[in-house]
Amino acid sequence: MTVSDRWLLPDGVEDILPPLAGQIESLRRNIMDVCQHWGYQLVIPPLIEYLESLFTGTGHDLELQTFKLTDQLTGRMMGVRADMTPQAARIDAHTLAEEGITRLCYVGHVLHTRPRHMLTGRTPIQAGCELFGSSSESADMEIISLALEALSVAGLPAIHMDLAHVAIYQHLIADAGFDRETEAAVFDAMGRKSLPELNILLGDEAANSAGGRLRRLAAVSGGRKALDQARDIVQGASVELDAALDQLGRVADTLSQQFPGIRLGFDFCELRGYNYHTGLVFAAYVPGHGDAVAKGGRYDAIGSDFGRSRPATGFSLDIRALVALGSSTVPTQGAIWAPVNPDPTLAVAIAELRRSDTVIRALPEDHNCDPGARGCDRQLVKYQGQWIVEKLG
Amino acid sequence: MTVSDRWLLPDGVEDILPPLAGQIESLRRNIMDVCQHWGYQLVIPPLIEYLESLFTGTGHDLELQTFKLTDQLTGRMMGVRADMTPQAARIDAHTLAEEGITRLCYVGHVLHTRPRHMLTGRTPIQAGCELFGSSSESADMEIISLALEALSVAGLPAIHMDLAHVAIYQHLIADAGFDRETEAAVFDAMGRKSLPELNILLGDEAANSAGGRLRRLAAVSGGRKALDQARDIVQGASVELDAALDQLGRVADTLSQQFPGIRLGFDFCELRGYNYHTGLVFAAYVPGHGDAVAKGGRYDAIGSDFGRSRPATGFSLDIRALVALGSSTVPTQGAIWAPVNPDPTLAVAIAELRRSDTVIRALPEDHNCDPGARGCDRQLVKYQGQWIVEKLG
Repeated sequence: MTVSDRWLLPDGVEDILPPLAGQIESLRRNIMDVCQHWGYQLVIPPLIEYLESLFTGTGHDLELQTFKLTDQLTGRMMGVRADMTPQAARIDAHTLAEEGITRLCYVGHVLHTRPRHMLTGRTPIQAGCELFGSSSESADMEIISLALEALSVAGLPAIHMDLAHVAIYQHLIADAGFDRETEAAVFDAMGRKSLPELNILLGDEAANSAGGRLRRLAAVSGGRKALDQARDIVQGASVELDAALDQLGRVADTLSQQFPGIRLGFDFCELRGYNYHTGLVFAAYVPGHGDAVAKGGRYDAIGSDFGRSRPATGFSLDIRALVALGSSTVPTQGAIWAPVNPDPTLAVAIAELRRSDTVIRALPEDHNCDPGARGCDRQLVKYQGQWIVEKLG
Repeated sequence: MTVSDRWLLPDGVEDILPPLAGQIESLRRNIMDVCQHWGYQLVIPPLIEYLESLFTGTGHDLELQTFKLTDQLTGRMMGVRADMTPQAARIDAHTLAEEGITRLCYVGHVLHTRPRHMLTGRTPIQAGCELFGSSSESADMEIISLALEALSVAGLPAIHMDLAHVAIYQHLIADAGFDRETEAAVFDAMGRKSLPELNILLGDEAANSAGGRLRRLAAVSGGRKALDQARDIVQGASVELDAALDQLGRVADTLSQQFPGIRLGFDFCELRGYNYHTGLVFAAYVPGHGDAVAKGGRYDAIGSDFGRSRPATGFSLDIRALVALGSSTVPTQGAIWAPVNPDPTLAVAIAELRRSDTVIRALPEDHNCDPGARGCDRQLVKYQGQWIVEKLG
């Protein structure tokens, strides 16, 4: 290994430098402020937990994405969190255990064994909000609206939002009664939206059988018209499927009214990345970028896995990715250069200025240095016995 | 394992709940603002790195405190950072590679295999500042002053600051020329300040031999008088030792002038926790709490380990511990309760209020709920066709 190799960072792991780090910090604060103004209270879940609690109700995908560690104190296996939503659900069900509605928000690094997508690498900075205790559509709407508000803070361009309902797939696959191997193959093909594979797997199923409906639904996506097509396909199948499509329609109507600038789409067999969801789910996209910039939805099951059944819905996003995609720039406030000078009144002037401004104090090594190259646009000079700030030419 | 056991968190790992999480977030912001006002630019070092780069120049202690992971992409060993200072040194020397003075700050979780002390557990929230490129005493003073400023933001009570110089021990131990086993035993006994052990190990050494001086210095600590005693002990030993003690004296003088409220002490054989330091080091304490609340100092060696020799000094602290010890409370701003009401003008009123205030929107499940119990001190009511905010009785 050469010296330069030694300081290479692992793939998908990066140093975030100025000014990008400052932009991330600024967006982090702005998004958390929005969440708090909507009544979401900050929690700081731990970076590591025992595997049993990290994986409760979350599905196999998250398990593969989680780095495992041995606890030297007990010999038990721990994991570094790969998703903070299940941690929030555990906190709601087990640690806080409040009655009524609980709104929580969080922000922090998560770690993935492999990069989920290009922009985030393996150390995304996840921020999110979770609403526990309400199964109402108003709760779903609040979470979707808050996700859109957070995205607007990031200065993202035209947003496309896909609505889906995981119960549709779950109902049809349960009805179909496939053997375990076929079910896994269908799930896999659905996840990759591979229509040819689905035709091979489900081509022999009657159009109005559960399998046939799955195959036909997988081919449907897009705007309003897609919703009508989906209604035709599931017609007469079950009350639950009709209810799911009705809900998608109502939520889409409300969203179009409240956010006329958002393009809406439907995806009836969406499964990717929804490890623990049970109802209405959504994902927001920006043009030219294939991965969702925010996603979330209803997950009523995790609470009961933690010993307390709680309806839940929420969303999360990756602040690092939003800064890469968005146009939220921090106005670069300049700084004031202070000379090397033992005058005690200089120290007083600097302390006063630093309450709201940046003052960089010159060090002996700064002899002949250009304050402009250090980001300074002003300097402290002594004029008639007073330290004053003057513009740098 | 019972159900309740399953959700137990590992020792030294905790859920941080409201309102404590909000206090931590607030102090985090305030401390980072101070650092930026002193000209320190934010960097976000990665949570994981290859072990080779994490451990460069940092010493064996950090290695034992670091959780190790296998990189599935390459099969190489990675570690979760246990200290962000060496990461900042790597960024300065290797990633940024700027000429002249570089000031960096950072904040984030670090992970320790075992709790370092009671208040932090295994997942401290480390914040710190590092100043690269200056070997001047002004740089040391800037870092110590900034550390004290950060502590004052946290609202800590009377602060005691210990000054030390790691070169004193290093010079004397090199002079003594002990075999490896004796040297390790002396290091260990020094670290634990065990005078009886040191007497056994070094009792036969002449008073003015290097070993004898070590033994005598270990017994000296305290304020000004201790500095004079130390001068007597090292008299005639070497120019470097005299210079180290002179520097301690000068820095103490300046600190007493600039921070008259701080109690100063000296500890001439301080070694604990200074894994990579080379010069003047310091640690701040509060009464009744044995672990340092902030510590730092000069570490000129790491830069050269990263292929570029840079003088460096810095400090770090644990925001989680500061909140536990300090008196910085966030004024609990109340919230406004908004009723269930489809009136579109309500939505407009809420959006307007949320720019600077917290509005909690009632959900259908909130029927009969007490808004006061949700932290609301005001509510939105419709009065003469207008939504207005009124105090909750």
